[in-house]
Amino acid sequence: MTTIFQKIIDGEIPCCKVYENEYVLAFLDVAPLSRGHTLIIPKQPVAFLHELTEESGRALGEALVKVSKAVVEVTGVSDYNILQNNGATANQAVFHVHFHIIPKPSVQSGLRMEWESSELIDGQALAEEIQNAI
Amino acid sequence: MTTIFQKIIDGEIPCCKVYENEYVLAFLDVAPLSRGHTLIIPKQPVAFLHELTEESGRALGEALVKVSKAVVEVTGVSDYNILQNNGATANQAVFHVHFHIIPKPSVQSGLRMEWESSELIDGQALAEEIQNAI
Repeated sequence: MTTIFQKIIDGEIPCCKVYENEYVLAFLDVAPLSRGHTLIIPKQPVAFLHELTEESGRALGEALVKVSKAVVEVTGVSDYNILQNNGATANQAVFHVHFHIIPKPSVQSGLRMEWESSELIDGQALAEEIQNAI
Repeated sequence: MTTIFQKIIDGEIPCCKVYENEYVLAFLDVAPLSRGHTLIIPKQPVAFLHELTEESGRALGEALVKVSKAVVEVTGVSDYNILQNNGATANQAVFHVHFHIIPKPSVQSGLRMEWESSELIDGQALAEEIQNAI
């Protein structure tokens, strides 16, 4: 299924473009949580971060640094959240990978989250299992 | 000031290591929001994402793809959130850049957020301003 982001990449739907190169496209979110809320997407059409090539991952990481610097400069807001959701349970709405840059001008604006942490159990064994899967 | 993450990089404090290369280190969060909650940090000691070199940014992007793939495989949870907070207002607790990989096994577990969006106003002008700052 063609997502709205694929249509933006293909130029079928307009966007307020902020940055583009061979691998990525960045544009303003049309339903921002705060002024300057920007999306960075890979041109590789996959839904989940872990499906990306490492080349796309590198390009996204570079663009995150570059674009967030400009968003901070232009908005004058130094605090911000980077968010990327994978799967409907995790609040993903468009099934094409996208990173949000969300300026946080105050505690009540921008991205608000609840943080209910627990204790790490059997950490060493779990870490080894993940390490072996890389 | 030396952060706890710098001490982990320097080997002064132990961690449940998941991945390491020349640029980044990944380890389990000691206060996880869900099983498999992992942190990826750059070895470059800066507080904010936009202060990173593009080289560090690329390495982080590559590691995000690599490590999230292994976290999905080992936890068996396909949905997850990537989060990176910049500044105290934005919930940053340790002032050394860190990306969270937070598995989302169910709506009530993992990262919970509130999403109060607004309308994009003067998008084209704002996008051009950001574009010019890159």
